[in-house]
Amino acid sequence: MIRVGIAGYGYWGPNLARAVAETGTASVEMIADMSADARARAALRHPAARLTDDIHAMIADPHVDAVMIATPVSTHFDLAMAAMKAGKHVLVEKPMADSPARAAMLVDEAARRRRVLMVDHTFVYTGAVQTIAELIASDELGDIYYYDSTRVNLGLFQRDVNVIWDLAVHDFAIMDHLMASTPVAISAGAAGFVNGSPENMAHLAVYYDDGAMAHLNVNWLAPVKIRQTLIGGSRKMIIYDDMQTSEKVKIYNRGAAPSDDPYAQMISYRIGEMRAPAIPAKEALLTEVQEFVRCIETGARPITDGECGLRVVELLAAASRSCAMRGHPVDIAPLKVAS
Amino acid sequence: MIRVGIAGYGYWGPNLARAVAETGTASVEMIADMSADARARAALRHPAARLTDDIHAMIADPHVDAVMIATPVSTHFDLAMAAMKAGKHVLVEKPMADSPARAAMLVDEAARRRRVLMVDHTFVYTGAVQTIAELIASDELGDIYYYDSTRVNLGLFQRDVNVIWDLAVHDFAIMDHLMASTPVAISAGAAGFVNGSPENMAHLAVYYDDGAMAHLNVNWLAPVKIRQTLIGGSRKMIIYDDMQTSEKVKIYNRGAAPSDDPYAQMISYRIGEMRAPAIPAKEALLTEVQEFVRCIETGARPITDGECGLRVVELLAAASRSCAMRGHPVDIAPLKVAS
Amino acid sequence: MIRVGIAGYGYWGPNLARAVAETGTASVEMIADMSADARARAALRHPAARLTDDIHAMIADPHVDAVMIATPVSTHFDLAMAAMKAGKHVLVEKPMADSPARAAMLVDEAARRRRVLMVDHTFVYTGAVQTIAELIASDELGDIYYYDSTRVNLGLFQRDVNVIWDLAVHDFAIMDHLMASTPVAISAGAAGFVNGSPENMAHLAVYYDDGAMAHLNVNWLAPVKIRQTLIGGSRKMIIYDDMQTSEKVKIYNRGAAPSDDPYAQMISYRIGEMRAPAIPAKEALLTEVQEFVRCIETGARPITDGECGLRVVELLAAASRSCAMRGHPVDIAPLKVAS
Amino acid sequence: MIRVGIAGYGYWGPNLARAVAETGTASVEMIADMSADARARAALRHPAARLTDDIHAMIADPHVDAVMIATPVSTHFDLAMAAMKAGKHVLVEKPMADSPARAAMLVDEAARRRRVLMVDHTFVYTGAVQTIAELIASDELGDIYYYDSTRVNLGLFQRDVNVIWDLAVHDFAIMDHLMASTPVAISAGAAGFVNGSPENMAHLAVYYDDGAMAHLNVNWLAPVKIRQTLIGGSRKMIIYDDMQTSEKVKIYNRGAAPSDDPYAQMISYRIGEMRAPAIPAKEALLTEVQEFVRCIETGARPITDGECGLRVVELLAAASRSCAMRGHPVDIAPLKVAS
Repeated sequence: MIRVGIAGYGYWGPNLARAVAETGTASVEMIADMSADARARAALRHPAARLTDDIHAMIADPHVDAVMIATPVSTHFDLAMAAMKAGKHVLVEKPMADSPARAAMLVDEAARRRRVLMVDHTFVYTGAVQTIAELIASDELGDIYYYDSTRVNLGLFQRDVNVIWDLAVHDFAIMDHLMASTPVAISAGAAGFVNGSPENMAHLAVYYDDGAMAHLNVNWLAPVKIRQTLIGGSRKMIIYDDMQTSEKVKIYNRGAAPSDDPYAQMISYRIGEMRAPAIPAKEALLTEVQEFVRCIETGARPITDGECGLRVVELLAAASRSCAMRGHPVDIAPLKVAS
Repeated sequence: MIRVGIAGYGYWGPNLARAVAETGTASVEMIADMSADARARAALRHPAARLTDDIHAMIADPHVDAVMIATPVSTHFDLAMAAMKAGKHVLVEKPMADSPARAAMLVDEAARRRRVLMVDHTFVYTGAVQTIAELIASDELGDIYYYDSTRVNLGLFQRDVNVIWDLAVHDFAIMDHLMASTPVAISAGAAGFVNGSPENMAHLAVYYDDGAMAHLNVNWLAPVKIRQTLIGGSRKMIIYDDMQTSEKVKIYNRGAAPSDDPYAQMISYRIGEMRAPAIPAKEALLTEVQEFVRCIETGARPITDGECGLRVVELLAAASRSCAMRGHPVDIAPLKVAS
Repeated sequence: MIRVGIAGYGYWGPNLARAVAETGTASVEMIADMSADARARAALRHPAARLTDDIHAMIADPHVDAVMIATPVSTHFDLAMAAMKAGKHVLVEKPMADSPARAAMLVDEAARRRRVLMVDHTFVYTGAVQTIAELIASDELGDIYYYDSTRVNLGLFQRDVNVIWDLAVHDFAIMDHLMASTPVAISAGAAGFVNGSPENMAHLAVYYDDGAMAHLNVNWLAPVKIRQTLIGGSRKMIIYDDMQTSEKVKIYNRGAAPSDDPYAQMISYRIGEMRAPAIPAKEALLTEVQEFVRCIETGARPITDGECGLRVVELLAAASRSCAMRGHPVDIAPLKVAS
Repeated sequence: MIRVGIAGYGYWGPNLARAVAETGTASVEMIADMSADARARAALRHPAARLTDDIHAMIADPHVDAVMIATPVSTHFDLAMAAMKAGKHVLVEKPMADSPARAAMLVDEAARRRRVLMVDHTFVYTGAVQTIAELIASDELGDIYYYDSTRVNLGLFQRDVNVIWDLAVHDFAIMDHLMASTPVAISAGAAGFVNGSPENMAHLAVYYDDGAMAHLNVNWLAPVKIRQTLIGGSRKMIIYDDMQTSEKVKIYNRGAAPSDDPYAQMISYRIGEMRAPAIPAKEALLTEVQEFVRCIETGARPITDGECGLRVVELLAAASRSCAMRGHPVDIAPLKVAS
């Protein structure tokens, strides 16, 4: 039984704690939050957990095997680093850190101390993304040409991060999991329309080394909620619509190809069947926490390990730099990690 | 009765000829096409029209008052210029020309000779776009923050122009009609995935002088057809979905605003009623041709006049330059037109 | 080349004439309509056809091989009978006649004279219905449990027939084609809400001899247009949505079954893949007219032959009787046809 | 503070208990369930509540002011009657009883003892139904012509009641709240396709004394979940789609009317604006429990009082009788209640 300490019991911490309690292979040993209100809520839900207002005391506690960090982004680095130095395994909220350099230091530390460092990119563990990953792995889609995502809604405006760090981070993690090739450059533009809040609308283009392209449209100020991703392959194409309660993933046997006839002027089109596979109903967060426990127990690498988290932060940072230059492309030059 | 000559009776020319015949205020005097097949089809539909394989003869004909040009883009400039020099009024297929310089020369010529020069940006004359224009004019939306369009489908791949010149041209014309402010820079990226065809997928960000932003997502290689535009205003927001048979335009009384309370941390949201106005059912192309006739008769300026056509071509050319630099922003510096 | 006479050139006649002209195997020999306006329109579209205001003269014309009847329902019987007596093959608009007795007399006459008698139940010839028929024939759906159709819209109110004879007739023809079993009783209810017009809303339940059930919901006074049919089978289920431009037919590998475990209390559910086959794009009316020509040439029986048309009229008449009794069930007792 | 006893802590009881705890004006005093497992779950969620396996002991408890009954339908009558005889106010799960006679006895008892008797028809307390009720009350829809509901999904098959008693009961309660006129007859048909389970598919037509008509389509064996109701009025029409996360209620300014011109042959149509009002986000069950408490405190009548519950049971019983006769219409003859 892995004994978990939860750092931060605000918006996301309660979800993590609930998932831990549901695994059956881990338990909520401690919960740390500075707010007395938060601790009172935690006591009601997790009567067996010890409560504290001192995260560092929890990190140092010898009965805590692993720490889950659900605090503001700016604190991720310090807390994750402290936890690993105290010998704990770490699951940290996304994004892993507020800069690539700090993210790299965390990766380095995890390797040196042989701790599990995992980033909570929950979408990667959804049945829908897992299904798409299998379709790609089986080569049903053929070569992946593009990933094109629209992720817009009204709110929630954040104070500390802009819409890229809040929403595009999900797509970057999904792309990291799905795309076989390597991003080499990014061009992004953003705008903010509400006083006192960071940019709320952004468009990002990511160029891959094999010619593939990704595009993200993120917006906190849209009239309706849209979560729609088009994935184009040489054989088939996908629409992944996360707002659908069923048929989230549709696979279209459609495409275009130069005519076989060398004298023909026209591109020919293929319009075949569409199918929507049954998507496993398991909960993404629970799957993710089970994966965390499994990696601690077996020494396996999590899918969204620290290096994945680092790659995502590198894209976020590059996107921010491009935005400041109105789309001027920024090369993606991965940081070398010591390990 | 305005006597019209149709140059080119391939894909679009028949539609123009039909619309002319339906106006009641104009007639199809001549139809010119090099293909005997095309002329045979024309004869069946327009038995009273004279047919020729020589467009320049038609342009020179004294019984032709106006010429409609529906030939390949590369020929627009020569034909439109010749027609105006022969004293004819001109309606030219979109895009008006293949370069801003040539487009500007056409504008100049039209002004000098006091001819009507109109570009066939049909979408501008749809009931949906006209309805949106009225909503903006009445200030119901407030300040326009953004225009965000997804215009994707499977095919038709073009041989002579890429997806920007084929699809984004529609949005540029709509934006020219709707946006009160002036575009100052553009950043665009594109990719092509089918051998022997130009770029089939592109993303474009347009920056306006008042901070507004436009974004276009165009693609010939998408699994399904999407024609969806989000327009965000300070008061209300719109979803314009051209694939809907009814409720094409939905107006959402929704938005975000800094809290009135200076001590509040949070952005407040407004979620009010949605409404979908009844859209007039009149046909866009017929409306446009009627407008052309009216301008010839009264000397009025068409909505999509030569200067509009020029501004659209400038955006297309700037987008192409930005694509070649992977999104590097390109300033929009309007050409000075002599008139 | 089969020479066709078109009786009635109002709303539907022009479509029949166009389809005949497109077959390549039949020609529009004559068009008969009492309205001079209608004949003028016919002359424009079919310059080679002879025109008359006397349908009976056309029926008697020795150069006419087959007659297509697109006149009001009340005239179908007289015209179809006259045509067959004159030795012509007949395609008659739906419904075939205004009573089962008259429909049966037409079937009888066609058999006696060995003429092709076909009813224009166009929906049966659509790619969607043909696809569903093949799915059922291949036993992919298993036993058919139910057919449940919603066919509602705003207008067009008819003066001479109510909504059952106008809209439910489509479903009755589709059911006749798809359902393996035999209808034995019908219960229907209707209401009319607009003065001076017949019933505009009706619900019909049809009971089959094997326990299957059909249900139709038809309405001229609905806020939006819905054309949605659910078909439930023991293996799979279908949603056929004719308002979709693609994915008209979706096949769901879903169902319920008693648990294999005799001690279990619960029904178990199966939720598998959905797929939407590519539907052939051929036009239904053209397909139907080609079928009519083929049957004339080969002596084959059309899918929607006179007996099909008779069965449909029997259901319509039974439904009307049930409506008058607020749903009191009416047995379907097929008329004996002499042939 | 009203002290509530919860009878039955299976599927629905926990929801009732949670809602009581959230009111702030009532408390969960006792919970009774025969299952030790259920009581263990109850203890975790409601540590302050007393637990018992004896519902009658709870009913007799002097510290219990009101009883909420969430047990199988066949037990509703006995428990509700016992509770009222013990002086308790009663909220009973839908349907109120398994026969009109028993439902009427409960109404009678409540009136005699001046106790609040309320039926848990939760849908009536949703923001959507409340919004529709206000639209009707304000006469925005005009006269109500019809209520047409499709309520289908895959499962959950029930063992003790058929699909009418499980799903149509919701519509009957909504109709009871919305329709101004009185149902006078019902015609219904049903079929069952899964061995060992009651009828899973049914269609019901309800005739009102003013000519209005209701129609319900309910099915446990449908490929997808549909919750769509069309409501037609003389002025406007509504689509209420409970599967939508926003825009659940759309109001269409559309209709048909005889032409004003007495010589005109045609019905004229009106196609105006559609609007979707903002629906209050309050939870239906909490609203309902608050209403129960308010009625206990003030002596007011609940919206879904015992007489409402009785009318619903009368419709259910009449529908069952009609089904047994394949749609033969059954008159609705309300039972006389002594009070």
